[in-house]
Amino acid sequence: MQLSGQSIIGTRRATASGGVFYAVNPRTGERLEPAFHSAGDRDLDEAVALAAAAAGAYRALPRSQRVEFLREIAAQLESLGRALIERVTLETALSEARARGELERTANQLRFLAGIVEEGSWVDARIDTGDAKRKPAKPDVRSMLRPLGPVAIFCAGNFPLAFSVAGGDTASALAAGNPVVVNAHYSHPGTAEMCGVAIAAAARRAMIPDGVFSLLISRGPHIGQVLVAHPLIKAAAFTGSRTGGLALAETARSRPEPIPFFGEMSGSNPVFVLPHAWAQRGDAIVAGLAASVTGSVGQFCTKPGLVLVEEGRAGDALVVALGREIGGTRPAPMLNAGILENYRLLVEARTRDARVRRVAQAAGGAGAGPALFETDADTLLGNPDLAAEVFGPATLVVRYRTLDQALEIAAMEGNLTGTVHAGSGDEEEAARLAAALEGRVGRILFDGYPTGIEVCQAMVHGGPYPATTDGRSTSVGGRAVERFARPVCFQDVPASLLPEELRPGNPSGVWRRVNGEMTMFE
Amino acid sequence: MQLSGQSIIGTRRATASGGVFYAVNPRTGERLEPAFHSAGDRDLDEAVALAAAAAGAYRALPRSQRVEFLREIAAQLESLGRALIERVTLETALSEARARGELERTANQLRFLAGIVEEGSWVDARIDTGDAKRKPAKPDVRSMLRPLGPVAIFCAGNFPLAFSVAGGDTASALAAGNPVVVNAHYSHPGTAEMCGVAIAAAARRAMIPDGVFSLLISRGPHIGQVLVAHPLIKAAAFTGSRTGGLALAETARSRPEPIPFFGEMSGSNPVFVLPHAWAQRGDAIVAGLAASVTGSVGQFCTKPGLVLVEEGRAGDALVVALGREIGGTRPAPMLNAGILENYRLLVEARTRDARVRRVAQAAGGAGAGPALFETDADTLLGNPDLAAEVFGPATLVVRYRTLDQALEIAAMEGNLTGTVHAGSGDEEEAARLAAALEGRVGRILFDGYPTGIEVCQAMVHGGPYPATTDGRSTSVGGRAVERFARPVCFQDVPASLLPEELRPGNPSGVWRRVNGEMTMFE
Repeated sequence: MQLSGQSIIGTRRATASGGVFYAVNPRTGERLEPAFHSAGDRDLDEAVALAAAAAGAYRALPRSQRVEFLREIAAQLESLGRALIERVTLETALSEARARGELERTANQLRFLAGIVEEGSWVDARIDTGDAKRKPAKPDVRSMLRPLGPVAIFCAGNFPLAFSVAGGDTASALAAGNPVVVNAHYSHPGTAEMCGVAIAAAARRAMIPDGVFSLLISRGPHIGQVLVAHPLIKAAAFTGSRTGGLALAETARSRPEPIPFFGEMSGSNPVFVLPHAWAQRGDAIVAGLAASVTGSVGQFCTKPGLVLVEEGRAGDALVVALGREIGGTRPAPMLNAGILENYRLLVEARTRDARVRRVAQAAGGAGAGPALFETDADTLLGNPDLAAEVFGPATLVVRYRTLDQALEIAAMEGNLTGTVHAGSGDEEEAARLAAALEGRVGRILFDGYPTGIEVCQAMVHGGPYPATTDGRSTSVGGRAVERFARPVCFQDVPASLLPEELRPGNPSGVWRRVNGEMTMFE
Repeated sequence: MQLSGQSIIGTRRATASGGVFYAVNPRTGERLEPAFHSAGDRDLDEAVALAAAAAGAYRALPRSQRVEFLREIAAQLESLGRALIERVTLETALSEARARGELERTANQLRFLAGIVEEGSWVDARIDTGDAKRKPAKPDVRSMLRPLGPVAIFCAGNFPLAFSVAGGDTASALAAGNPVVVNAHYSHPGTAEMCGVAIAAAARRAMIPDGVFSLLISRGPHIGQVLVAHPLIKAAAFTGSRTGGLALAETARSRPEPIPFFGEMSGSNPVFVLPHAWAQRGDAIVAGLAASVTGSVGQFCTKPGLVLVEEGRAGDALVVALGREIGGTRPAPMLNAGILENYRLLVEARTRDARVRRVAQAAGGAGAGPALFETDADTLLGNPDLAAEVFGPATLVVRYRTLDQALEIAAMEGNLTGTVHAGSGDEEEAARLAAALEGRVGRILFDGYPTGIEVCQAMVHGGPYPATTDGRSTSVGGRAVERFARPVCFQDVPASLLPEELRPGNPSGVWRRVNGEMTMFE
């Protein structure tokens, strides 16, 4: 595919307008062709106006057409094949295997969401039939989840496919029946354009109204801020840093009409290794933890940033073994120069920090050297800033004296995940930790590692603030569709004006709650 | 029941601390015994600390116990009978019939929510079973809605029972498994105390942990503000004025840990009367509209504040008839002197306002005189401040020349409801109006009136900002429970640590989505 370096406004290309920038190969520091022209305010206005104009028509399409659209996007992405994988690896320094896996996940995610739309019950249709004889007459009341309107999607830097232009947020918003205006990540504009072209092609094939998809490519925070502030945008979703997320959240809520804003900002993802687990399968835990900390150069929002281990000899051995493993992992380039610089600065600061001890750091070669630090629970509880995320392949082992300290750490701050490794004999401690974690995380794991998220109906990738700005939602899994919808109620509305899922006789064949009972047959 | 004038902190009474105030009979201006002692910051701290301490135990109770609690509250309220009705009418000037109806609704609402908890499927349990043979191994992933933690509930002035101490928000938060700290409305403190005593008695009977319910009685905004700012409060719900709601929303979001805030602030609830509907059943529409505007002295959040009617003779006749009906309705006392004063000032301002014409105003007698005003669509669209709510028995007829004007008005601002009266021959206009309203309201009604909300699974009493601060939620109906919960995911968590609804074999007998399929049998 010949890259144009231009944004996509519905079915058109933007004409060269804003400043020029290039993608950079993080392995070499060399710039990559072609030049990208930053979208300007006019491009943005056009994209949003088109999206708003298309919202009614898109919402009203038979859902089979939305299903086709999502599946066609998956097919178009796959047909890009090697060219896409190459561009991803050039722009992000991620490995080819990772890029291939992510493309597969992205396509599967689109098909997973297509399946949810096809099955149709996610709309939570409810019907309470009327009764004219009751005094006063009982109205006919029906409700279901309906789309919000144009959604602004912010691409994540660390998932150039699965949480970028054609990623989970775009797919969920489209699945729910909303037009999207996507704000590309400046760090992989070529990948973004390729995916944008694939979506535009899919839209044409599935005969989706012009403006349901637009892609704004730019550098710097301006376009994103203006997009969230735009009065015709009705919701926004973001995955990235806490600073970026909170700035956009502030814009979303200080608009004349505040809108739902879903910011996914990660955190420390504590992993508790209980004594019997360590004794019974210590080697596997060390290997698993090291892989989870260093996989994809630690650039996952669920990377374990805190590892909680009891004081004493057994724990000492874990620290030594984990240090050996992490310190022995080769340094590797990160997503871009800014992220690498930031990682180096944070690791240097920790190295100089008297409150923590550096256990190990990989040396040699360019890029980010995986690092392991250690401190004790008293220090962490007295210095909660030590729990702050270090984006990259570093983690902090925290040694606790008592379970109460571990419980206090579990309750410190909202997180995406909390993990417990429990062996035979750890049952009581594990139960108490799980109960403490439940109030503070979106996902509790046992005997596993938080990275590597299963895309399935039950997955929750969200959590209480500051893990996200809206802890009642998830960006992965079946429930991701729901956050781009709201319940709308139809009281005594003629059948011809009802959405298909609420019509008499259930022509959609979805599960509905009719007069309180779940049924597919009425 | 002997009123003590004191707040309820778990199983204890607060000791007289803050300033003293009295309820006032709005019919006579006389103060009502006894003196109420405003809760102080220490009372609040104690209530919230108790609630937080009880959260884990309450969440872990078998759900049958929560069901019993809710049903017992209903029974305790009913057993107050005449004494409660008397106090309500004394404190609010609402009619005895209205008070009786509201008590019945309040008890039914508690039983309705008890039924939802008993049936249990509202938790949206999802299970994706693992597969150790897959590469990489597929984890066992389960998730469901879980309680948020202590919820602050703000009582509404206009529903002394159904949206007050034992009202919908309290019932929903308790149903979802959260402790509540209720902030009483200063205008009906005696009613509040009686309902609080009923809930406390029900808690004892159902052996609910101390602190799951507390009631803070005070005058002025201080306690409410401190309550929403309290770090152990995890969500808040409010029904009332836009000013009050937005002030609390600001507090909720500027905390170090922002929390979900559900502010229900009403609006103009437009009613569109299309030409054929008027021709075919004009008399019924006039009678219904007048009743909806003046019922309970216009003190409903769904009162129609805008009535849209075409220009021309037919519409003129509607205005005359509606004016006759509204102008002929007796003035009546409002909930308190402040609300009445505010209504009078707004009606006087409208009367002097050159942009509108006063069609009719009821005179004679004390209290609020129902009033009808008229303007044209050009004026309204140029002066959107005219759509601002007048809390009380007044409404504004807006005459439009073209359907486009009506559509533009339908899209003006978020509202709880939008109503269309359509006759045979109005089909096309009705369809276009319904589509325009869908993006801006929580509930679309045909051929009815927005007041008088049916409490049922499908009801939605919410809507886009500024109708509420969170348009993805509802304060009435089956979905009201969900807003006090969030999805929590359990990955490879041992069965003994799973909430009942997620356990193997489905011991709870709830509907679950197992590997994508809805079922009760696995």
